[in-house]
This record gives sequence, C-alpha cells and structure tokens, in this order.
Amino acid sequence: MATSSNIIIRMEIQKSKITFGEVAMAIGESGGDIMATDIIHSARDSAIRDITVHIPDHSNSSLLERLRGMDGVKVINVSDRTFLVHLGGKIEVQARMPVKNREDLSHVYTPGVAKVCKAIQQDESKAFSLTIKRNTVAVVSDGTAVLGLGDIGPFGAMPVMEGKAMLFKQFGGVDAFPICLQTKDTEEIIQTIKNMSPAFGGINLEDISSPRCFEIEERLKQELEIPVFHDDQHGTAVVMLAGLLNALKIVDKKLEDIKVVVIGIGAAGVACSKMMLAAGVRNLIAVDRQGAIVAGEEYSNSMWRWLAEHSNPNRATGSLSEVIEGADVFLGLSGPGVLKVEDVKKMARDPIIFAMANPEPEIDPEAAEPYVRVMATGRSDYPNQINNVLCFPGIFRGALECRARTINERMKLAAAEAIASVVGAEELNEQYIIPSVFNEEVVVKVRAAVIKAAIETGVARRVPRDFR
Amino acid sequence: MATSSNIIIRMEIQKSKITFGEVAMAIGESGGDIMATDIIHSARDSAIRDITVHIPDHSNSSLLERLRGMDGVKVINVSDRTFLVHLGGKIEVQARMPVKNREDLSHVYTPGVAKVCKAIQQDESKAFSLTIKRNTVAVVSDGTAVLGLGDIGPFGAMPVMEGKAMLFKQFGGVDAFPICLQTKDTEEIIQTIKNMSPAFGGINLEDISSPRCFEIEERLKQELEIPVFHDDQHGTAVVMLAGLLNALKIVDKKLEDIKVVVIGIGAAGVACSKMMLAAGVRNLIAVDRQGAIVAGEEYSNSMWRWLAEHSNPNRATGSLSEVIEGADVFLGLSGPGVLKVEDVKKMARDPIIFAMANPEPEIDPEAAEPYVRVMATGRSDYPNQINNVLCFPGIFRGALECRARTINERMKLAAAEAIASVVGAEELNEQYIIPSVFNEEVVVKVRAAVIKAAIETGVARRVPRDFR
Repeated sequence: MATSSNIIIRMEIQKSKITFGEVAMAIGESGGDIMATDIIHSARDSAIRDITVHIPDHSNSSLLERLRGMDGVKVINVSDRTFLVHLGGKIEVQARMPVKNREDLSHVYTPGVAKVCKAIQQDESKAFSLTIKRNTVAVVSDGTAVLGLGDIGPFGAMPVMEGKAMLFKQFGGVDAFPICLQTKDTEEIIQTIKNMSPAFGGINLEDISSPRCFEIEERLKQELEIPVFHDDQHGTAVVMLAGLLNALKIVDKKLEDIKVVVIGIGAAGVACSKMMLAAGVRNLIAVDRQGAIVAGEEYSNSMWRWLAEHSNPNRATGSLSEVIEGADVFLGLSGPGVLKVEDVKKMARDPIIFAMANPEPEIDPEAAEPYVRVMATGRSDYPNQINNVLCFPGIFRGALECRARTINERMKLAAAEAIASVVGAEELNEQYIIPSVFNEEVVVKVRAAVIKAAIETGVARRVPRDFR
Repeated sequence: MATSSNIIIRMEIQKSKITFGEVAMAIGESGGDIMATDIIHSARDSAIRDITVHIPDHSNSSLLERLRGMDGVKVINVSDRTFLVHLGGKIEVQARMPVKNREDLSHVYTPGVAKVCKAIQQDESKAFSLTIKRNTVAVVSDGTAVLGLGDIGPFGAMPVMEGKAMLFKQFGGVDAFPICLQTKDTEEIIQTIKNMSPAFGGINLEDISSPRCFEIEERLKQELEIPVFHDDQHGTAVVMLAGLLNALKIVDKKLEDIKVVVIGIGAAGVACSKMMLAAGVRNLIAVDRQGAIVAGEEYSNSMWRWLAEHSNPNRATGSLSEVIEGADVFLGLSGPGVLKVEDVKKMARDPIIFAMANPEPEIDPEAAEPYVRVMATGRSDYPNQINNVLCFPGIFRGALECRARTINERMKLAAAEAIASVVGAEELNEQYIIPSVFNEEVVVKVRAAVIKAAIETGVARRVPRDFR
C-alpha cells in the first residue's frame, strides 16, 4: 500500500541571503505544497526550519535539487513520515505511578521494597503478581529472517520488534519489550533467553531463520515454565486456519474431506501444515522444490521427516502442477509466480487459494480471480489479509491472564476458531473470511477462547475471575 | 523511615449472616479507621470488598483476629501499601504514538518499517536515532547482592530493578528496562549481556556480588561500545565524593592534604577509594578485617592488590583503631558498630564521618554527634543521605545524549562536582552537604557536566545542540 507522500525538509536559511518567502515560492514552483513549518533554532543570521511538504507525484528529486542549488539554503536532512515516527524509537518505559516524595520512594524502592523482594524469594510464584512478569512478554529476534529482508542483523531488526511491541500494547494490553540478539548460534540464543527469562511472563520469538527456529523454540518450551511462541510459525498458522475455517463454510466442505497442497515448507509452512493436520485435515501434501514430500524418502530437515511420516497418506509424488490435481485448497508460503493459472484450473470445484508470499503472492490475484472461489493473501490491499496481528495480542493476553505454562495445540486451535467466529454467518462471503486487525472483538474472543482451552488442558496456573 | 500504616483487607461477607455495618463497627472497635471501601464482586448471597483501614499503632493483629473470628466474614487477603503498589509490577511499556488505522500501521510496522530496517542495516549507527537505543538502558542484576538481603535470586531482585527503572524515568527521563539473570556464572553473565545489548544505549549493572562484579564490568567495558556502569560501585563513589567535596569546604581542608581511612573494601569501598585517589587524595588507607591493606603483602583479590600498590603511601599497618589516629575522614561501607567513639576521638580536628552501612551505620549517629564535625549516612532519616539516586539518572541522561562510548573517570568526577555544586556556598553547612534526591537541579547539572567531560575526553559520538 502507498505510504504518505509528505516529506519533512530540515534546512538552514541564511537570513542575509534569502528570505523564507523565496524558499516557499521555490517549493511551490517545484510542485510541493507546504503543509507546516516549524522553527527549530533561530540565530541572528540564520534559522533552522522543518518544512513539511506534500509531494503529489511521490517524487521529490526536482524539488530538492532546486533547494540545494539556492544560495543561502542548506538542506540538512530530508525525512518522510515513516522515518519521523521512528525517531528516538517507538516505545518507552513508563512508571505505573509517580514518585513524588520520600513516602512514595520508600514504597517503590528502599527501604519498603525489601519486604516485597523477600516475599518473592520465599515464594517465586509471587513474581507473577508482584512484578511485571504478570503482563510482560519479550519479543526476541536474532535478525536473521526479518520480513522479506532476510538476515539484516539485530540492529536492523529493532524497528520491527519495536513495532510489534507497540501492537502488543495497543491491541492486547500486553507490555512487550524488544530484545535483538547479537548472536546466531542456536545454543547461545537458547542460553541467553533462558538467562534473561525471570522478568517475563512469555517469550515471543520473531524472525529467526529456519531450521534453527524449530530447535530454539522446542528447547525453550522444554526448559522454561512460561509460554514460548514463534510467531512466524504459529501466529501465521492460527490466522491461516481461521481464514480456512470460514472459507470452507462458503464452499460447504469439511476439513476431513479436503485435499490441501502446501508449497514453501519453511517455518511458517511447517507450522501451517501441522496446524491443519491437528485441526482434522487428512489429505495434506507438502511440496518443496524437488516435489511432494513423501514417506520413504530421505530428508535432512527433521521437520520434513516429520511431515513425510504424518502427511500425504496416498503417497502422491511429483511436482506442484501434478499434485495440485483435484486439490481443494492451495496454501503458498514461498515466492511470487509459483502457482500458474493452469494449476488453478486443475483444482477441485470452488478452489480456495491462500497465496501468502509477501510482498508478491504466489499468483497474481487479478489473474487468478476468474478461476478461484476464495482467495486470501498476506497483503492489506486485497481482501482477506492473513495478518498475525489478529493472533499474537489476544493469544498472549489470554496466556498471561491465566499464567499458562505453555501455548499448546488446543489453545492455538481455540484462537483460530475465535478469530473465525468474529465474522458472523450473515456477513461471511468470498471477500470477507477474516476480520480486520482493527476489529476490537478479535482480542476479546481470542483471549477468552485461549483461557478456556488452557484451563481445560491443565496448563493454566490461575483462573481469571470471569472463568470461576 | 516508617512506612504507611494503611492496610487493605479483602474479605468476603455472607450477607445472610452479617451486615457490612457490623463489620465496620468491629473494625472501629479494634482501633482501625476505615479510609475507603470498594466492592470487588457482588453476588446475591455474598460480596467481596476491599476495605482500606488506617491502623494508628502499626499493629493489626488484634483487628485481624477479631475479623477472622466473625461468623460470615472470610478474610481473603491483607495488603499494605508497599505490596499494593507492586501489584502487577511498577513499570509498563507504552507506544510513543497510537496505531489508530491502517495508515499508522503501515508506518510503524509493515510495509513501511522495512525501509527503516534497511537504513539501519546499511549504517548501524542509525540505531541510535531510529530505535529505542537512543534513550534506553538495561538494568541488569543476577540477584546475588540485593540491598542488604544478599543472594535472593533473580525473581526476588525484580522489585528493586523495577524501582530503579521508575527512578531512571522519573528523575532522568531515561527509559530503563529490568533484566534479572537466571545465572551466577561470570562468563554466562558477560555473554548474555553482550548478546542482548543491541537494543540498549547503556548497561546499568546492579546488585552483583563482589568480586565477580569487577570482572563482569571490566570485560563488558572492553567488549561493548556503550557505557557499562556498575552503580553499586560508581554511583556510590560519585555521590560520596560529592558529599566529601562539600564537607571539606566546611572544615577548610584540601583533598591533597587529608588522611582518609576506608573500611569495608567490597565493590563500593574499592570504587570509592579509586574515586578519591583519582580526585586527588594522596593518603588513603583501606582496611579489611585483617587490618590496613599495605604494599608488600599478598592478597588474593585483585582489587586489593591494586589498592596495596596505589594507596597507603606511608605503609601504615595495624587495625582500624590504630590507623584512624589523625585521620581527617572516615569512610565506612561495612557493617554496624565497626567504628567506636574512642576511634573518633583519635581523629584529626573536625572529623568527617561517612558511615554508609545500611540500615545500621558503622557508628550510631547520636553517639558520634558530639565528636564529629560532619556526618553522612546512607539513611534518609538523618541529614546528608548519600543516595545513588543523585547520580545514575543524570549520568546516564548525559551519556545517552552524547552517545558516549563509556562512562570514564573524568565524567564521574564531573558528576560528583556537579552534585556538590547544587548546594550553594550560602546554604552549605554541617547538616546540608548534599542535595535532596528531589532537587530538580541535580539531574540538569549532572547531565551538562557529564556531556562536557565526555566531549573533552573524546568519548562522545554526538554533540548535543546546547554544546555546539
């Protein structure tokens, strides 16, 4: 989607050489519209101004060239809104109460705090009520698989993790803090997260490349008593399943009866496959670059070995265009152009396509449109966006409130059903199988479903009042 | 100091058996004053209420006994204000701007965030302007030396670290996040902090026991390009020196001329000794349980070996009561009762005593009073409290604003002088050598002095506007 075309130009103007009016005129003549102007610093001879300019055609090169060529004008910096909202970071740490005087200080710090420390030392479970552990999640990445950018390192990954922390608070009321790791070593990552875990009530793993992400999550789940959730895997799987449940209502098919073909079996593809199998899908065929994953073949990736044993019951072999024959559902988590229109034509009646490669889906939505019944993508500019924001705030909100030891399969299924249920029977149609991330009902329903499932499966350490 | 004597009693009242009026009357008859009452949950037969009760004599045992004996009353929980302010933790993570619609989302998260990530990937120094690194400090402890409580573990330590994070924000505008480590291993602590450092612009080490704290700080200073500051050492040393500078003005003595005796040479004692030596003190004698540290003796602790070489130029030997003869300044960071009135009587004219053992000083201030000229302690209920809160918010405020690589000796000395300067010549007296932690001038002066020193010593990577 298009981002705003406002830019902010910080410039120093030599008052003896040029007036602000002349600068403003030049901006107007170059096609810019001045939206706002702020004086940042003013001296006798010069002034530093921030000028917000609207550029209709998204190109600012001629304007900037003109300004840079003017005598008495020094362009210091040009920012767009996206950069501006990032200045100084997007989150902050706030005290939940002010410390106005010595009485306050004596309660929140020494000497009063000592008795709270001792109470926790004697009963560590009190950390869940007397510290931020109650409501705080670490968003942890090593920066190796950030968005579609790949391995950009821990510094480059920070804006994504900060953004995620914002969304945790905004949508779920969860305090989340970003931790980007200066290591790619599996053992070091596991050890570091374990070492820093006492402050947190949950760990959201993010943008860690496959296959390391599997071992890191698995080991941490075993070794920590708080939920560990690799969102790229399970968040995607939960929201995808929510969309699938609703899509199947439209075409009047059942999970048990459908044939699903999954292409792109990295972290998200494996998680989506496992989730569908757990939900009741029987005939699922995972396809890699060599063709269908099938029992009896040798695979170096342990997740593929698992898939070979647990999916593809008819031992179908061959390429995507062979195994897609008669499929009810296509799920893509790979790259652009993988699915051809001819492939879609081979599918069963009312094809369902989840083409989730970002930013370019596995098939162009316009090209596919005449042949598919329901189409979903990862993009916000087409209908049916499969967006993890629908899952992680609510699933952690619920897990934290019931002090869940883990987020298990039942909780994830419950979250998917809850997201699907937000779209009512009378609203449901091909263009609307999944609610908007701004639909406030989502987090409420996901929270409740997750708590209920946690209590039923025995992983809740606390029963929230509305479940007593 | 005394904490508030308000308690909050959560109780369930069976309406068929007893009325709230009867409960209120019982509370009054037991000496309690009802300050507030909140209904937490109400059903047909019962209600859960929180009753805030003021207890004049600080004892609530008779009141609670009476309530617990009443038919129809079930006391669920009793809290005091200190525990109540800790419920759910004392800090939260807030978004610095709201995410109200898809346009906002596209700037702070995908797809817009990608270009910010790439800009940082190409130039890591941009993390200082485009992420929370600009203003964020990790408060890291392993819970081994918390307050006077000792090794209470990472969970028990959290309330102190959260309190510290509150004070960082309240007094210095610094975002601080508490990390308590589930390990006591020196190498693992170093590795964990290094691994998680990208999000942070500084590391405040806290309550880590000696001598591990020395190696952890030293190694991290070498291996990280952001300030690493063990507050128990350097914060204490800075504020102590600030007090000493002002005390010496009162008695009209110079750092170069005085004889100082230090007892208790753990982390804080070593740091204070080094700080005084750096500030110009020549005749400093550090004393451990065996007597004065002196060149030529063998010491297992490397810091003591350093002290033996760099202090005690006259090679004084013997116990505290021997070396105290003729001393101008006594600095205690040990335990109660270590300094006797007879020892004070042996000191030079106008003795200066910093008895900083907490909660019980090395000598009872009332007993010492007739014989000392200036006395300071770590306590808030005597004059001249040496409190680290005077240092850490301002020193990190300054270090972050100029993106200092480290906090060096010159910056610490500058901070001490800045704190001392807040007490004007006309205000200075024996009872007022150090400002209150609530004096807002402190952070302003410390920040400016620290930035100036950082620029002068070449460790600043940015020159704040007011220093250009």
